[in-house]
Amino acid sequence: MKNPKIVPIALSVIIVILAGTVVALMLFMKNQPIQTRGVPAIVEVAAMEPDSAVWGVNFPNQYTTFLQTETNNARTPFGGSEPFQRLDVYPNLRTLFAGMAFSKDYKEDRGHRWSLIDVRETERIGETTPGTCYSCKTANNPMLWAEMGAAEYARTPFKELGAHIDQPVGCANCHEAGTMRLVVTNPALEVALEAQGKDWTTFTRQEMRSVVCANCHVEYYFAGDGKLLVFPWANGTSVEAIEKFYDDLGFADWTHAESGASMIKMQHPEYELYSAGSTHFTAGVACADCHMPYTRDGAVKFSTHNAQSPLLNPAASCGACHTDVNRMVGRVTLIQNQVATTMVAAEEAIIAAIQAIAAAAADPNVDIGLLEESRQLHRAAQLRWDFISAENSMGFHNPQETLRILAASTDMARQAQLKAVLALKPQAGP
Amino acid sequence: MKNPKIVPIALSVIIVILAGTVVALMLFMKNQPIQTRGVPAIVEVAAMEPDSAVWGVNFPNQYTTFLQTETNNARTPFGGSEPFQRLDVYPNLRTLFAGMAFSKDYKEDRGHRWSLIDVRETERIGETTPGTCYSCKTANNPMLWAEMGAAEYARTPFKELGAHIDQPVGCANCHEAGTMRLVVTNPALEVALEAQGKDWTTFTRQEMRSVVCANCHVEYYFAGDGKLLVFPWANGTSVEAIEKFYDDLGFADWTHAESGASMIKMQHPEYELYSAGSTHFTAGVACADCHMPYTRDGAVKFSTHNAQSPLLNPAASCGACHTDVNRMVGRVTLIQNQVATTMVAAEEAIIAAIQAIAAAAADPNVDIGLLEESRQLHRAAQLRWDFISAENSMGFHNPQETLRILAASTDMARQAQLKAVLALKPQAGP
Repeated sequence: MKNPKIVPIALSVIIVILAGTVVALMLFMKNQPIQTRGVPAIVEVAAMEPDSAVWGVNFPNQYTTFLQTETNNARTPFGGSEPFQRLDVYPNLRTLFAGMAFSKDYKEDRGHRWSLIDVRETERIGETTPGTCYSCKTANNPMLWAEMGAAEYARTPFKELGAHIDQPVGCANCHEAGTMRLVVTNPALEVALEAQGKDWTTFTRQEMRSVVCANCHVEYYFAGDGKLLVFPWANGTSVEAIEKFYDDLGFADWTHAESGASMIKMQHPEYELYSAGSTHFTAGVACADCHMPYTRDGAVKFSTHNAQSPLLNPAASCGACHTDVNRMVGRVTLIQNQVATTMVAAEEAIIAAIQAIAAAAADPNVDIGLLEESRQLHRAAQLRWDFISAENSMGFHNPQETLRILAASTDMARQAQLKAVLALKPQAGP
Repeated sequence: MKNPKIVPIALSVIIVILAGTVVALMLFMKNQPIQTRGVPAIVEVAAMEPDSAVWGVNFPNQYTTFLQTETNNARTPFGGSEPFQRLDVYPNLRTLFAGMAFSKDYKEDRGHRWSLIDVRETERIGETTPGTCYSCKTANNPMLWAEMGAAEYARTPFKELGAHIDQPVGCANCHEAGTMRLVVTNPALEVALEAQGKDWTTFTRQEMRSVVCANCHVEYYFAGDGKLLVFPWANGTSVEAIEKFYDDLGFADWTHAESGASMIKMQHPEYELYSAGSTHFTAGVACADCHMPYTRDGAVKFSTHNAQSPLLNPAASCGACHTDVNRMVGRVTLIQNQVATTMVAAEEAIIAAIQAIAAAAADPNVDIGLLEESRQLHRAAQLRWDFISAENSMGFHNPQETLRILAASTDMARQAQLKAVLALKPQAGP
C-alpha cells in the first residue's frame, strides 16, 4: 500500500454519502402525498361516497384546494365567481328572456362548493321544479342514480328529492373511489356519448380531464313528462346540430312573452364550444390544464381542485405552456372584448326583431305566414346568441367559432326584424 | 519514458486532427453565400438599381428563389398564385362592384415577378389611368421617385410613365444597395408612418421584415387631382379608423351602379389586418417568417425569396415554430372555411340591401332621408366586407378581427336593407 490511510478515508467517505442519501430520501418521502397509486389509503372510501371530507383524509392537497372554491369569489372582466346579478349588469337579458325564469334571476355562478346552496336559493326554482335540477349540483348524485335509477331521480319533485341531498358538487362527481380514476357519472353523458358511438372507458386520462367536466358543463334539456336529463347531441355538438335536434323534436323551453316565438334556453355549453375545433382543444389541452393547473406544495405536485377562471391565476394556468403570460392575458382581453362587442350587436338586433314582431303581431291585418317566419328566425338567432352568452368564457374557449356563430345570429335577427316589418305591411316587397 | 513511441503517436494524432479541421473549414466556406455582411461584393450594385439580375450576382440564393415567383403558380383553397378569374368563381363580385373596374376584371394575383406584366394586361387599366398605378408594380420606382418626385410620378399618365419602366417588383423595392438593409422605399408609407409619429429607421430588423411588405400590401387611395398615393392611416389602421378617414374626407372611389351609394374599394390591407393584434403579430412573427421562410441549401441558411402562400410549403413556414404542422394546416383550413361561410353571408346581406335600395330609389314616392341612410349603411357594410374580401388570407392573418368585422358588415347590410324597405313604404314603422 502506498498510503495506509486510504482504506479508512474511503470508508468514511462512503459513510457520509450514505448518511446524506438517507436524510435526502427521508425529506423527499416526508413531502410525498399521503396516498399515491398502489399505496394503501389511510381510510377506506366507500363507492360513490357523497361526503368529500371522507375522501379528503386520503387526499389533503386536492381536498383543501377544493375547499377554496368557497372563498375564490373574485370577479373577472366578464365572469369569475362573484354572484353578481347579471340582469342588472346586462339589462338586455330581461327582454331576451321575457316570459321565463332567467328574466327573474340570473346570477353569475359561484364555485363548486356553493352549488347546493345556490340552486336552492335561486328564484328560478319553484313548486313544479323537477328533481332533475339537482343533476349537477351535488355529490350525492352517483349514489342516488345507482339506487333510484336516473328516470325515477328526474321525476321526483325537487323539494322531495332534496331531503336525500346534503352535499355540494364533490369528489364523487368525477372520481371512482379506490382507483381515483376519472369517470363519467352522469347517466345523460353516458347515453349521449354512446349515441355518438363513443365509449368513454377507452378514453385516455388526458381526454377524461375534459370529459368529466362534460358531466355538467354542457347544454341539456328535460325530456318528456318524466323530465329526464338529456344532452341534445344525437346529431353532433355544434350549435347547428343542437338546433336541428330541437327543431326535429319540435321542442321549446318557453314561448317568448313579447315575440310569441318558441324559444330554446341554452345552458353553459362549455364542452361543446371548446371541443368544436378550438386551438387549445386540438392541441390536446384539457379543461383541467387551465382551470385546475398543476400546483406545487413542497416536493408535491398536484392538480389544484380550486377550479376557477384562469384569469385569476394566469401564471399557473397559461404559464405551464406559454412563457409570455402577460401577452397571453392581453390576447384574452382583446378576444373577449371583440366577442363582447359583437355579442351586444347581436342582442340589439334580436331586441329590434322582438319589438318588430310584437308590433306586427298586434296588428289584425298581419301576414301570418311572414309573422311565423320571423318568429322562427327569432328562435334561431337567439339560440345562437345564447349558445355564446350562456357559455362561460366570453368566447375565449373558441374565438373563431364564437364569432362565426354571433355573425349568423345577428344576420338572422335582422332578417327576423325585416320579415316582421313586411308582415305588418304585406304590400311591401323586400 | 515508459513508452518511447508516445511522442510520435501524439504528434500524428494532432496532425490528423488539424488536417480534418482544414478540410471541414474549406467545405464550410465553399458553402457560404458569396457575400455576407462585411465581405466585399463581387459586383458593385448602384443605389436603387432597378435590375434585380445585377443584385443577383452577389446574392444567387436570394435571386434564384426570387425567380421562382414566376413559376409558383399553384392554387390554394382560397388563393395562391394561379391567375384565375375571381368574377367567375365568385359571381357575387359582379353585383358588389357594379359600376367600377373590378366588376370587369378581378384575377387572382400572381407572384412578384409577374407584377409588371399583370398590371399592364388587366382590363382595369384605361386611357385615364394615372401613373400611380405603377407604385407597387416595379423595381424602377425607387429611382423614379428620387428623380421625378412622388407627386410628378403620380400625376404622369400610366402609359407615359410606362416608357421608363421595364422591371417587375424586385430587390430595390425593399433593400438598400450595399448594406442590403431593409428600407421603406414607398414615399406613401414613409408619410403614413410619420403621421403616426413612427420613425422606421428606429425599427428592429424583425419589425422591418413586416414593414417592408407594407410598402405595397396595404389599403391606399389616390388623393386629389394629382392622384398622389396616400395610405389612409391618419386615425389608425383599424377598419373603423380607415372608414373615419374616408368619411371625414367625403371620399368615394365610385358610385355604386345599382344602389347609388358612394363606395370605397378596399385594396389588400394585409398589413393592417395582420398588425391589428393578431396572435402571430403580437408574438413577434414577421410576414417574412411565413411567406419567405428560412431555407437551407447545403450549409447555407437564407430567407427564400419565393414569396408565396405558406400553405404551399407549410413544413418550412409553420414548421419553423410548430412541430405539429398537420394540425396547423388543419387549423388554417377550419378558420378559412369559417371565414368563407361568414363572408358569403355578408355578401348575400349586402346584395339584398343593394336590391332593396335599387327598388326604393326607383319609386318616386321614396323617403329620401331613409334612402340616403340605407346608402350610407351600404357603403359602411361593403367597406368592411371588402376589407376582408380584398385581404389575401381569407381571414387567417387575424381570425377574430376578421369575424368581428364581418359580423358588423352583415349587421349593417341587413339594416340597410330594412331602411330601404321602410323608405319605399314611409308609412311603416320598424
